[in-house]
Amino acid sequence: MNHFLGYQCSHCKREFAPDEVSYTCPHDQGNLDVILDYAQLNRTLSPQRLFHAAEPSLWRYAPLLPIADPGHEHTPLRFAGWTPVFQPQPLREALGLKRLWIKDESKNPTASFKDRASAIVLGRAQEIGAKVVVTASTGNAGAALAGMAASSGQKAVIFAPRSAPPAKVAQLLIYAAEVYLVDGNYDQAFDLSMQAAQEFGWYCRNTGYNPFTTEGKKTAAFEIWEWFRRFENLPLEELTIFVSVGDGNIITGMHKGFTDLLRLGWIDKLPTLVGVQAEGSAAIAQAFDQNLSVIQAVKAHTIADSISVDLPRDGFRALRAVRESEGRFITVSDDEILQAISALGAAGIFAEPAGAAAFAGLKKAINSPWLSADTPVLVINSGSGLKDVRAAMQAAPQAPIIEPTLQALRRMIQ
Amino acid sequence: MNHFLGYQCSHCKREFAPDEVSYTCPHDQGNLDVILDYAQLNRTLSPQRLFHAAEPSLWRYAPLLPIADPGHEHTPLRFAGWTPVFQPQPLREALGLKRLWIKDESKNPTASFKDRASAIVLGRAQEIGAKVVVTASTGNAGAALAGMAASSGQKAVIFAPRSAPPAKVAQLLIYAAEVYLVDGNYDQAFDLSMQAAQEFGWYCRNTGYNPFTTEGKKTAAFEIWEWFRRFENLPLEELTIFVSVGDGNIITGMHKGFTDLLRLGWIDKLPTLVGVQAEGSAAIAQAFDQNLSVIQAVKAHTIADSISVDLPRDGFRALRAVRESEGRFITVSDDEILQAISALGAAGIFAEPAGAAAFAGLKKAINSPWLSADTPVLVINSGSGLKDVRAAMQAAPQAPIIEPTLQALRRMIQ
Repeated sequence: MNHFLGYQCSHCKREFAPDEVSYTCPHDQGNLDVILDYAQLNRTLSPQRLFHAAEPSLWRYAPLLPIADPGHEHTPLRFAGWTPVFQPQPLREALGLKRLWIKDESKNPTASFKDRASAIVLGRAQEIGAKVVVTASTGNAGAALAGMAASSGQKAVIFAPRSAPPAKVAQLLIYAAEVYLVDGNYDQAFDLSMQAAQEFGWYCRNTGYNPFTTEGKKTAAFEIWEWFRRFENLPLEELTIFVSVGDGNIITGMHKGFTDLLRLGWIDKLPTLVGVQAEGSAAIAQAFDQNLSVIQAVKAHTIADSISVDLPRDGFRALRAVRESEGRFITVSDDEILQAISALGAAGIFAEPAGAAAFAGLKKAINSPWLSADTPVLVINSGSGLKDVRAAMQAAPQAPIIEPTLQALRRMIQ
Repeated sequence: MNHFLGYQCSHCKREFAPDEVSYTCPHDQGNLDVILDYAQLNRTLSPQRLFHAAEPSLWRYAPLLPIADPGHEHTPLRFAGWTPVFQPQPLREALGLKRLWIKDESKNPTASFKDRASAIVLGRAQEIGAKVVVTASTGNAGAALAGMAASSGQKAVIFAPRSAPPAKVAQLLIYAAEVYLVDGNYDQAFDLSMQAAQEFGWYCRNTGYNPFTTEGKKTAAFEIWEWFRRFENLPLEELTIFVSVGDGNIITGMHKGFTDLLRLGWIDKLPTLVGVQAEGSAAIAQAFDQNLSVIQAVKAHTIADSISVDLPRDGFRALRAVRESEGRFITVSDDEILQAISALGAAGIFAEPAGAAAFAGLKKAINSPWLSADTPVLVINSGSGLKDVRAAMQAAPQAPIIEPTLQALRRMIQ
């Protein structure tokens, strides 16, 4: 059995039993943190035992998850997580960093970080007997829910605004999700998904609402911990991690993972989390700079659609993640994001704009007093460039056109 | 050191030393098979020793490759191969097959089978001191060359016809390849790449010309062998493998891998290879049906662009692969390919048309006398559906549009 004790509201700190609530705090709608029985876990588990798990996926951390293992062996669901960590020598040299790693989340089953969240939410749905999982999304979260649901034979319902790009909707439909195009904006699709969940007893995956998404996303923190401990012999506490931030749920999930490790006594201190937002979608970064805890909505506009958010639904906890880890926020322009796509591509890593934003943030931070040539840095690429080829076309140079002759080529090369 | 003895022409059977030739047979332009020192390998190597390799990539088979290990640890190049094998229960039930597996090549670094070939060709280029690797392609082979070259710090030059889709060209450019858009058709781009290779001393990767592409692709056969032996306890000899066929190089590479294992005495018989071609690009299947060994060019037209080929450059060996393994060819229509995209998607696997073609072939073969409910079947998905979202849009149903109200939703659901 798992060691799921209950929830604590991130706002008011009230605690709830596992069956007492489903989503947010009934008192103040604060996002809920999942609480595990760390004392009991410490008696039965050790890093060494975890590291011996054979499964090359996030399921190797099943003992630290608040759900029972959902099964579905040999399906894409079992292949979420355990993504590669690259050491791109040209980027190290270009940035003057001796120790730089890139963790490539585009290698997840539906090609983004979001598979981690959807895999765990579907496990929870199975456990509580929910027949249908619903979300509002046209982006990576929707694709991840649809893909993981198809893997595990569960039904997914997805609400998207009617204006959603047909190519993104097609991916949801290919995974056999039931998709409704809402004749309204994203907020209306979001509201309808919540109403539908309540009305029909569907389980709602919405980010910054369902407490299990961060429990999935925290597995990336576990992987970083295991990887640096086993293969790099580097104390995690020294690491600075750059991660792109939209609604704030990924950085919150990573903070949760590291906090779990801290509570287990397996690390002494959180690694430093640096949140990178697009300049045109920087609600959380602005609150951080103004030392506020309440997020003011913005009118988001950035090429990085996966982190383009008016009102971040997990902004409060994202601020906590950065403050508790003694990190900071950085904002980057769309031009800097496009340049980062090119820089990563030249090292063989094809990132979508939101994924490249984290690297753009690192590049921008290079001459900061808090970052030296010796600082060990890990950058998360949160999604595949194949998800947004239009952005790649903006980032790529023009290819020359030549006559089909050797002379023409020789002239061009000289 | 490796055990690379030389080459044998697949047509005239003449043999050549490793340094005697570079590409095709100087006598009849036949494609060359790489010959290893099987006796020596047998003395120094065993399946058990190979299976103990820690690296989860095609590099675990380094002792069976005709190149020295190229290094480049912790780059995407080291993550080519070792792709997942799924057991999709709903597809088993739908097809009435007790034992069906899907090997998902979309999980390679640039999301297609072709990374296997490019990784090995770049290793060879490094070994012979070639500074530049060149190819003609706009598709998966070009992306694989560009991506693997970026990973390993080598320079890639790619010739594409001017009419190539800008989205596909963008992926090459993002990986920092030097791309030339040739003002002519694909054949002119192909010819120019060969001339340029000769003129400038570049190493040419072209499929059905460079003998090392099949040496990369054969690693998929090794993985299938290892997987079924270690995890399924199923004799490889009983397996029937469905693989889509365009120029014939993938099925040739798989045949080479199984033939290596046969020569090593590690299997007793080749598994059965079933080549699946699109009806509109079926030059090899037609030669097979007419019992010919010479391939007649067709005017190819199919939605499955990765297997759309007028004159297959490795057709002769593809016929050999199917004949020697006592397999056959099947052709499928574009409609059948689109249906296969949907069927795979509903199991959580997002395939490009060429990748789904193999599954479409299996579906078509279901009532054949040579395929029973007990036949163990493996289907290769050769590439990611994210590579061709336009095709996915054709395969996907329409999503209904609804007013943003619960009443509208209730009406729709009832």
